[in-house]
Amino acid sequence: MTKFAALLLGCFLAAPALADDLRATGDLGVVIERATGSVLVIDQSEHAAIARVEGFGDLSHASLVFSSDERYAYIFGRDGGLTKLDLLTQKIVNRIVQAGNSIGGAISDDGKLIAVANYEPGGINIFDADTLEPVATVPAGGKALGLEEAPGRRFLFSVWETGETKLVDMSGPAPKVTTFADIGAEPYDALITEDGRTYIAGLFGEDGLSAIDLWAAEPKPRKILPGYGRGAQEMPVYKMPHLEGWAGAGEQIVLPAVHHSEVLWIDRRTLEETGRTATHGQPVFAMARPGGRQVWVNFAHPLNDTVQVIDTMTHEVTAELKPGPAVLHMEFTARGTEAWVSVRDADKVVIYDTETLKPIGEIAAKSPSGIFFTARAHRMGL
Amino acid sequence: MTKFAALLLGCFLAAPALADDLRATGDLGVVIERATGSVLVIDQSEHAAIARVEGFGDLSHASLVFSSDERYAYIFGRDGGLTKLDLLTQKIVNRIVQAGNSIGGAISDDGKLIAVANYEPGGINIFDADTLEPVATVPAGGKALGLEEAPGRRFLFSVWETGETKLVDMSGPAPKVTTFADIGAEPYDALITEDGRTYIAGLFGEDGLSAIDLWAAEPKPRKILPGYGRGAQEMPVYKMPHLEGWAGAGEQIVLPAVHHSEVLWIDRRTLEETGRTATHGQPVFAMARPGGRQVWVNFAHPLNDTVQVIDTMTHEVTAELKPGPAVLHMEFTARGTEAWVSVRDADKVVIYDTETLKPIGEIAAKSPSGIFFTARAHRMGL
Repeated sequence: MTKFAALLLGCFLAAPALADDLRATGDLGVVIERATGSVLVIDQSEHAAIARVEGFGDLSHASLVFSSDERYAYIFGRDGGLTKLDLLTQKIVNRIVQAGNSIGGAISDDGKLIAVANYEPGGINIFDADTLEPVATVPAGGKALGLEEAPGRRFLFSVWETGETKLVDMSGPAPKVTTFADIGAEPYDALITEDGRTYIAGLFGEDGLSAIDLWAAEPKPRKILPGYGRGAQEMPVYKMPHLEGWAGAGEQIVLPAVHHSEVLWIDRRTLEETGRTATHGQPVFAMARPGGRQVWVNFAHPLNDTVQVIDTMTHEVTAELKPGPAVLHMEFTARGTEAWVSVRDADKVVIYDTETLKPIGEIAAKSPSGIFFTARAHRMGL
Repeated sequence: MTKFAALLLGCFLAAPALADDLRATGDLGVVIERATGSVLVIDQSEHAAIARVEGFGDLSHASLVFSSDERYAYIFGRDGGLTKLDLLTQKIVNRIVQAGNSIGGAISDDGKLIAVANYEPGGINIFDADTLEPVATVPAGGKALGLEEAPGRRFLFSVWETGETKLVDMSGPAPKVTTFADIGAEPYDALITEDGRTYIAGLFGEDGLSAIDLWAAEPKPRKILPGYGRGAQEMPVYKMPHLEGWAGAGEQIVLPAVHHSEVLWIDRRTLEETGRTATHGQPVFAMARPGGRQVWVNFAHPLNDTVQVIDTMTHEVTAELKPGPAVLHMEFTARGTEAWVSVRDADKVVIYDTETLKPIGEIAAKSPSGIFFTARAHRMGL
């Protein structure tokens, strides 16, 4: 064969390979490797890591959102880094350090804007999701936290020092900011319900939480769950549970108690407490299996080698799993057939069948923390 | 430039094109072209059709499901055809005619099995989602309909002639079938709630519907909504509303009334009626915008040029749209920013901004009916 023919053959051979190399993105995901500033891109269906990608900076407290086509992950690092990762090429396509110290971000419902909440210098920065060019800055009189997106190209966040929540409407040419004053002392985290209706902020400076109903004719904050919070006991902020640990489970919401070994059951309509379940340790995340039939709970150090499964009908613990040392996070596949559990100090992610509760696979990972599947792109309140 | 060099250049040029040609699948969709047995593959973000694909047989009453990675659509045709379409190559990768007359299908929660309900010869057939090889046949004493998947690799369907519902558990090596006798006379359609908990069958032979709570220790059928149905009035089956027209909207379910120009509001907990809204015509589909803030309704002939938007808080009609002649179906983008509306007799799909309610794009299509976005792959009860 001549060189010419060989090249020609090479060209033709390359063409059919193309179709086989195509990859859908609906079953991909990202695992944060917190110690090394790297991530794994994983394929759920294959129970496998496709690639390790490095260069994300400080991922000791990282989170991410996905583009609406499920191709890109936007990763928010502790060091103010905002990094755009292409899941199809497994390469970083853009990275900026947009502030001194950031704690999380959100993507607008139309997928066109990325917002990042900052401690330093405070307030939020908003970027074009395509280019990461700056679009707007919304200053605040202190640390911005609890940043969430709401329907209608809106974002909400709260301010630690001033006890305010700010609603940022990006549907017009310039940001329109509404400030809710006095939501409570020292908001430290927040969530938005999965229907995009209610923004709930946790308070460090007082008991209870603050809820804003965005469907009301004139939204305004009201206090809920007055017994929920730090109470008389002094506690460092890092001991306060992440509100992302809340989970909707049918007609109920389940949430980790503050500094107690129990989860609380809340009526979804009234937002009043309806019961408690004693748990193995202090819960960190209480995550509902999609559909809400069971809730899986992991725990704070030193009881963090365990996961308990709680029946949402009876509120009873029905199973106890021992994935290994330092279980940091759990993520369910979109229709709830599997739960993926990161076990930091065993350097692995363990995959469970949610029906049999048996491990059915594992993936090696360096000090894994957060696990995020692309199905999040299609949901509100994440 | 020599031919050799040109070829070489061609090879190198082809390589970088590869990354650009990659396509994510989270924002793709399929539009059924009912008259021509063809479909459009569409890209939501681009507001564009990527390709027309032909050869699907009789699509006069078609539906489809997506693989869990959002790469493939499984299209169920009226003629018993089951066709597997690759959205990335826009080619049919497999097609079988599995029965004489089929009316819909479902995909197991783990994405591994496709089930199809058949009028001829009755019962359901179950296939391997990868190869379309037959896995199991579940016979029944009549026409199978209302086929839905439930968590735990299960399917449910009902039987017109015998008034039974069958629960097919495919979690073991062979199908395990549980039969619920006497659910009611002549079930004609069914749905499963989005949490995978409750299977509800509509009855043609009597008033009311039949509900089975799959979370109960011993699931059994019970009658609900006794006023809902054909009543004393003789009506052909095609006048009975599709139960897929039901929509969860926050704490409520909204559904088209039978043979009346109104929609009914049902309390999600009690499944009791709480109100009615008078509408422009006889509703066909009542679809909740994701999050449940509004419900969009289309209507039966001859009032089928109109869509009404109803506020779920006030139950009032807040807007009326005129997309064109013969509005057959509507589909929202995953986080509710857009509604896509098929207008059969204008040969187009019109795209609306759900905040402004203005048309923001359209796509030419031949007699379009059903519109399906890949985000369905990640949901239960669709």
